[in-house]
Amino acid sequence: MNNVNKYTRQYFLPPEPCFDWVHKDHVDRPPIWCSVDLRDGNQALIVPMNLEEKLAYFQLLVEIGFKEIEVGFPAASDTEFEFVRTLIERDLVPSDVTIQVLTQSRDHIIERTFEAIRGAKRAIVHLYNSTSVAQREQVFRADKDEIVNIAVTGAEQIRDLARTTPGNFFFQYSPESFTGTELDFALEICNAVLDVWKPTPDRKVIINLPATVELSMPHVYASQIEYMGKRLARRDAIVLSVHPHNDRGTGVAAAELAMLAGAERLEGTLFGNGERTGNVDIVTLALNLYSHGIDPGLDFSNLPAIQARVEALTKMQVSRRHPYAGELVFTAFSGSHQDAIAKGMKWREEKSPEHWTVPYLPIDPKDIGREYEGDIIRINSQSGKGGIGYVLEQSHGFDLPPKMREQLGYAVKRVSDREQKELSADEIAEIFMREFVNLGQPLDLVELTGTDARGSHRVRATVVWQGETVEIEGAGNGRLDALCHALEEGLGIRVANLTYKEHALEVGSGSRAVAYISVDDEEGNTHFGCGVDTDIMEASAKALVSAVNRMLAHRAEMAVPVSK
Amino acid sequence: MNNVNKYTRQYFLPPEPCFDWVHKDHVDRPPIWCSVDLRDGNQALIVPMNLEEKLAYFQLLVEIGFKEIEVGFPAASDTEFEFVRTLIERDLVPSDVTIQVLTQSRDHIIERTFEAIRGAKRAIVHLYNSTSVAQREQVFRADKDEIVNIAVTGAEQIRDLARTTPGNFFFQYSPESFTGTELDFALEICNAVLDVWKPTPDRKVIINLPATVELSMPHVYASQIEYMGKRLARRDAIVLSVHPHNDRGTGVAAAELAMLAGAERLEGTLFGNGERTGNVDIVTLALNLYSHGIDPGLDFSNLPAIQARVEALTKMQVSRRHPYAGELVFTAFSGSHQDAIAKGMKWREEKSPEHWTVPYLPIDPKDIGREYEGDIIRINSQSGKGGIGYVLEQSHGFDLPPKMREQLGYAVKRVSDREQKELSADEIAEIFMREFVNLGQPLDLVELTGTDARGSHRVRATVVWQGETVEIEGAGNGRLDALCHALEEGLGIRVANLTYKEHALEVGSGSRAVAYISVDDEEGNTHFGCGVDTDIMEASAKALVSAVNRMLAHRAEMAVPVSK
Repeated sequence: MNNVNKYTRQYFLPPEPCFDWVHKDHVDRPPIWCSVDLRDGNQALIVPMNLEEKLAYFQLLVEIGFKEIEVGFPAASDTEFEFVRTLIERDLVPSDVTIQVLTQSRDHIIERTFEAIRGAKRAIVHLYNSTSVAQREQVFRADKDEIVNIAVTGAEQIRDLARTTPGNFFFQYSPESFTGTELDFALEICNAVLDVWKPTPDRKVIINLPATVELSMPHVYASQIEYMGKRLARRDAIVLSVHPHNDRGTGVAAAELAMLAGAERLEGTLFGNGERTGNVDIVTLALNLYSHGIDPGLDFSNLPAIQARVEALTKMQVSRRHPYAGELVFTAFSGSHQDAIAKGMKWREEKSPEHWTVPYLPIDPKDIGREYEGDIIRINSQSGKGGIGYVLEQSHGFDLPPKMREQLGYAVKRVSDREQKELSADEIAEIFMREFVNLGQPLDLVELTGTDARGSHRVRATVVWQGETVEIEGAGNGRLDALCHALEEGLGIRVANLTYKEHALEVGSGSRAVAYISVDDEEGNTHFGCGVDTDIMEASAKALVSAVNRMLAHRAEMAVPVSK
Repeated sequence: MNNVNKYTRQYFLPPEPCFDWVHKDHVDRPPIWCSVDLRDGNQALIVPMNLEEKLAYFQLLVEIGFKEIEVGFPAASDTEFEFVRTLIERDLVPSDVTIQVLTQSRDHIIERTFEAIRGAKRAIVHLYNSTSVAQREQVFRADKDEIVNIAVTGAEQIRDLARTTPGNFFFQYSPESFTGTELDFALEICNAVLDVWKPTPDRKVIINLPATVELSMPHVYASQIEYMGKRLARRDAIVLSVHPHNDRGTGVAAAELAMLAGAERLEGTLFGNGERTGNVDIVTLALNLYSHGIDPGLDFSNLPAIQARVEALTKMQVSRRHPYAGELVFTAFSGSHQDAIAKGMKWREEKSPEHWTVPYLPIDPKDIGREYEGDIIRINSQSGKGGIGYVLEQSHGFDLPPKMREQLGYAVKRVSDREQKELSADEIAEIFMREFVNLGQPLDLVELTGTDARGSHRVRATVVWQGETVEIEGAGNGRLDALCHALEEGLGIRVANLTYKEHALEVGSGSRAVAYISVDDEEGNTHFGCGVDTDIMEASAKALVSAVNRMLAHRAEMAVPVSK
């Protein structure tokens, strides 16, 4: 690609190695979660939310279990101001939830912010100003001292207004564009703000270090966080917070590694909505913890319902491959994956192991409110007998013998390949019914009666054979055996090596029986048939007749001379 | 959430610390890229590609610059077999491109695979079998020795068939489900295969370590790769390859950290298509390198065109927030971001700096074929004057004075807030034209003539004033000054502090002039007007009349008594 020399790495490494975090292999507790959906998320929507939509979204966040929620930048627009006032005046904020408002470090904006949060039971005033080299130079055209002065002046004004405004106010400072800031300058400005706010372990201040734009690899961000955590003044009086974005597609990793490196609090959004590539996705972070056996403290046990509400309110779609939430993320189309999942599920049923270890499924989809059916195993031309059999069993209750699954597999893949489409469980069942079940051509069973004596069975059957009604009879060591003999003696149809399997068909109708029968023809080819009936004997007889019909169809096909 | 105790960490740490990689802060060269779009990607599509689509996709991959392309699992289906044969028989593979085919370690599958690649100029035979604890226990119900034996037997068969089959064949082995495998067992099985294949530095073998399912944090994967790289036999005769998936949303991070840890080759897909949450996204990886000044060796300089082709062939959509490619990833809606981008772009124009450092834009969108217009700055109720002015200038060429941008900003935000929608550049221009340009109520200019003498100007104007045509005239030190005096003397309209700005209107029509004029009313409020005309003087006069009309409208509004 051209122009590659136009780029350079814009981030700054810690002045000393900060790699303690690398020795931990997993996050062992959830952070304090702070949703910024209503601010950073909302401002990145093509159509921002209106007041009613914001109230509904706030309610959703509370239900999920967020205890800190950034509700807006109230000085930026009347809608946001009105939303904050509505939350406070209608008393919509539960007592264990703290709202948070963002403000630039400008006199009239801070004043307006305090007008918005007047009377709040618990509110975090989140002050920011931009500190990166690029912003200082290009946007503010100011030197470091001037930038520090902006932060300190704002911090003082906030400190003073918090004393005189009714309500209970906490403070947060973000050196915005932290990831493009020299670390010692970030330290200097944070410490200058802390000097104004003088936090104590009982009344902590939040220092939030945003990856406003993700500029480095995620382990560099972790080392930056570790450095800041080691060097910030009044460390025991600080909550160290991170706010990753996802410009390099590594926002989740950056957040997780930062947590290993000392971040105690995390700002993000549901499904990673937010400016450009989005804020870090809290759903993924929470369920990553969950998959490692750590309770995230947020409730995503009905993720599909949460997703539907978020999609309706934001008018944004969650992608099909989005971790945990996407339509396809628990789906296997390929034969070998389907087979392993089917076997893993069966093994799980047999052994009841302590831990979830089903191949290809990082967590049990049911734990987040998803169903197995139509979700885990979906069928197209890439699928195999294992998956097809599994789907038919899960959806319609037919538990086919393994070799019969193979024959069904060929039939289904032929259809999917020809029609170039995915097949639903109903379409698979339709293929199965059409090709294997209760077949009546060229042989059809009209009536079957039998008499049983000890060790000896006789049957009499009325059949339609090649268009004519015929009475046949036979004897054997069981009714099926007797029917086979009747077919051979009456019609000259010979079958060998009959195998048999039967079960109740519980799905659909509770009272039907299903039987699977295979017979071998004279060349040793095996042909399967299936019979379904309310009566066990009838089901078996129909299965046998179906198997015979498939054998006859195969023979007819082979008899056609191949010509071109 | 319930059921959290059902989960445990299923990955294995290296038996010794492997953290050398952490001391590197960036990837300094691209890996050997191997696209698995046509295999791992294709098998995860709801509608897999047909032959023609696969050929088109292959062509696209070649154009982008891939030198290794996994083209399928030819023994798995007739479509895949036929595709491989078509590539070879129609001679569609450039001489510097190596195709790759996947095969399970089963006798008849390996045989069929070699039938598929017979005569290939360069083909990698990619052997895999599953090695994880879960798969050994649940799917294969086999012990470690049996699993090693599967791999070795397949490796031997491949070695022998490669000798007797026409073509030039290279070998690759993957311990599938590597991330759920004890590392020393993964080593054992890889080394056993290497003992069969006996690679040399001149004829290397690829050892590929897939995160078939992403089970750990990305730095754990990196340490696993470092461990394997240090311990594999015949290291100088191996190409160490990784194949990350994205179940935890950290596939890109895992790939990048693994590259620091010694991975020399990477298997992934365009835009991260693939099983479940997808394979790692090669577009993001390549452009992450690019953004750090490293040439990725793949050409994404027209990413929108590539994206359109991939979307058409796969019937999958790239998400709006997908790094580099998504519709919204270079977009700023919020006022402060728009302002910083506009200032950064201006600074860049002024200073022509060596490196790209525009705030909020990790790379220059133009370098990957995206336009600024309609992409970077989009306008809704969250937007500010900076962004609105920028859009109007970029799209329609109006370069408003700063204070006029503010007045336009209010007008535009009012519309966006009321109508709850994003506004296009044309809609913004429409608001601007309606509210500021060539206004004719209550005052309209019909004709203007002037005579100029040294230092003294006289104008005569025919105006319509409150419905009546009136002739006015005046004198001044310039024509505008003269027109002001005419308005005051003839109609009693007083204005003060006139400011003036003019430029050619290059966008749209090359020959028009645009003038911006502000006047103050008696209370000191400033009112802007704009005039557009082919004649410079006419444009100025119209701007003045427009400013006066806005002043009069404001006065009328103020005069209405407020009542409820």
